This record gives sequence, structure tokens and C-alpha cells, in this order.
Amino acid sequence: MEAIEELAIQPCTSSLYLRPFRLCYRQNGTKKFWDFMRTHDSVSILIFNTSRQCFVVVKQFRPAVYMCELERHHPELFENPDKEGLSRVEDPLPAAVGVTYELCAGIVDKPDLSLEEIACEEILEECGYRVPVTNLRKITSYRSGVGVTGSRQTLFYAEVTDQMKTGEGGGHPEEGELIEVVEIPLEDSMKFAYDETFPKTMGVIFSFMWFQTNIAPKLPKK
Amino acid sequence: MEAIEELAIQPCTSSLYLRPFRLCYRQNGTKKFWDFMRTHDSVSILIFNTSRQCFVVVKQFRPAVYMCELERHHPELFENPDKEGLSRVEDPLPAAVGVTYELCAGIVDKPDLSLEEIACEEILEECGYRVPVTNLRKITSYRSGVGVTGSRQTLFYAEVTDQMKTGEGGGHPEEGELIEVVEIPLEDSMKFAYDETFPKTMGVIFSFMWFQTNIAPKLPKK
Repeated sequence: MEAIEELAIQPCTSSLYLRPFRLCYRQNGTKKFWDFMRTHDSVSILIFNTSRQCFVVVKQFRPAVYMCELERHHPELFENPDKEGLSRVEDPLPAAVGVTYELCAGIVDKPDLSLEEIACEEILEECGYRVPVTNLRKITSYRSGVGVTGSRQTLFYAEVTDQMKTGEGGGHPEEGELIEVVEIPLEDSMKFAYDETFPKTMGVIFSFMWFQTNIAPKLPKK
Repeated sequence: MEAIEELAIQPCTSSLYLRPFRLCYRQNGTKKFWDFMRTHDSVSILIFNTSRQCFVVVKQFRPAVYMCELERHHPELFENPDKEGLSRVEDPLPAAVGVTYELCAGIVDKPDLSLEEIACEEILEECGYRVPVTNLRKITSYRSGVGVTGSRQTLFYAEVTDQMKTGEGGGHPEEGELIEVVEIPLEDSMKFAYDETFPKTMGVIFSFMWFQTNIAPKLPKK
């Protein structure tokens, strides 16, 4: 699906996106420090289309996932971490190894909006469904990346119908987002969840299982 | 439980732990870059003690989680991201806001060991149980931190008995690890999983639910 070309890696000495800090502290009398990154909290949404009995998820090329796979095959790319220059990747892997299935999600960076409102915006932008805030059900929240970011993620459940589809979704291509909306039929969903050949987040697996336990038993019988 | 004192934050210009890189590439014709961090893959283990019908998890003070909460209360600490100096935290929060419940886990940094062997080492080091590799059951794998790290996490299930307990666990205090082993009775586990007043990772919630679906129905009746 994706054409990924002209790859090159360079050390990143300053980034608008990665903002590392060091916390110095004393824990139970012992002096310590810990390097962490500031990030935003986030929301993610399990979307179930009742018209067609399928989950609506997104997939996109994730450079960080791709680089993990690339390093597995070409560890020499990172062998000299001190060098300043650009390492061209002469023998890249297919882009597919970095394409990841995820729940519709977004960061919490609008102080005037509730988590639910941000979630509804993401559903519209990424997946094209206009969902009233009252349709959202909070599943739970938890901590992500406890070693490095520690931010809070809140997971919602939203039921949608074909009538609520008002656009194509896909995110903001003008900002470089290339998000593909994917429908996973309910009947295939647990097989998909545990099929490791499709790279995916734990959020997909967890929320599909949550649905099986909490929603599926109450669905009208076909 | 933890005494956390003398907190100070400083920008982190160079870190042994956070190694940022920039990937430059062309996606479907458009030039892009993405900042990411190199990390290790990891393993985590849902441990169930059959002697006492409880889950064995760990809890520890997580500076990154603590800082997220601190920023919620004191956003001014980060208001000038360019300054070079140290910001002392005059009015810290209780350490408890950064203490997180997690599955026993570890990074994959020993090329000679299998994932299962690394998992068994972590179970012994962190929780004090000596588990044969053959006792491990792989649940699945998934991608974590797809925006920043993208590393692969593999989740295992291990049953233990009181007879397998050979030590106290707790990690490597000499390396600064302060890990507390916590037992969650099976009968309280789903209430605990969804109680957001206990900060925890999605791995805890997901694996407890996985147990309910996959293991609990086969447990001998009391």
C-alpha cells in the first residue's frame, strides 16, 4: 500500500516532538535521577458499526515500528551512536512491516474540550463518523509507557451506524497524516486480535476482548 | 510507602536511556521526517499463584507517571522549555500518585537468551519464583508506543505455586530498583482492574480479563 523511499537516519539533537527532561530526586534516602519525556494524555475509541457488525479501526505507517524491524535486520545502522551524519538505508524493508492497526485515537491538547469531545473529534477526523458525545461510553483509563512517558490514556466505546458516516476520515493529509480506515467484521475480530502477523497495539486486542465480554452477549440475535 | 524528596527538573540534552533519532523518508512521493527513540523489545508475564488463587504483580514509583501528575498541578514547572537551569519543585505531590501497578516485565537485551528465558529471569528477580521455561504460555505480542518507540512486547502467562517461591523478589536494589511484589486475590481482580484510583498499565487490565476468559473457566471448583 505505502511506498516508502529514500530512507535516512540521523541523530536527533533537538526535536519539537520529543522533549526529554531529567528528574533528580531522593527516594527513601537514596539520590537518583530519571530521564523521561513530556507527552500529552490521549484518548482512544473502540468503534463498532452496528449497521454492518464490524469494528472500525485505523492503520497507518509508523516510522518507529518500521525502525524496530529495520534494526532487527540491519543492526549496523545504529552501531555508532555518536556519529553526527546521516546514515542512508541502502536496503530497506517493505513498508508493510511498519504499518500498524490501531484504535482511533488522539492526544489531549485542547484544554477547553472534554475528553469525550476530543474523542468525538477524532472519530470524525480519522474515521468519518459524526457521533454525539452522549454516545460515548468510557471503558477505563490506564498508564502508558510508564518508563518514559507515563501519560494517561482513556479508552472509550462508541457505537456508530452507516447513517452517521459523513465523510471519508483519513486524518489530516495536509499535516502529513495518511490514515486508512479499516473495518474488521465482528465474526473475524478475535482471530484478527491474536494474529501476530498484523502488527497492532494492545488497545486493539484489549478492546476487542472487552467487547466480547461486555457488549456481544447483549447484541440482538441475527 | 515511598519517601520522595528534593525533586528538581532539568532539560535533558544527552541521555544514556533516551536515544532520539530522526528518520527522513519519502512516503507516497511526499518528503517527511519522524523523530523516534530506540528502545528494546520487552516481555511481560501474568503470574497466577495457584496455591493462593491470586495474581502476582509489581508496583513501583515511576518518575514519568509522577511527572505527568505534577504537571497537571504545576504546569509552570515546564513553562519555559528553553531554559537550561534546574527547576526545584517546592510543592511536590505525594509519591503515591506515581506508584504504578504493573505486570512483572523486563527488556530483551540478552541476545543469547530466548524470550521465555528472559521472562523466567524476570519472574525470579522481581517476584522471587523459580519457574521452569516450559511453564510459560505465550498469550500474544503487540506494539507499544507506536508513535515514539514502536517496540514489540510479548506477553506470557505463568502459573506458580508457593513451593516455587525461592526468594523475596524486588529487583536489583543495588541498581536502584525498588520493586514491591503485590498479590491481588483472584476474586478481587476485575474490581481492581477497573478501579482507576490505582494507576496501572493496560497490560494488567488486559491480562486479568484474558485470564477470566481463558483460564478461570477451567480452574478446579473450590
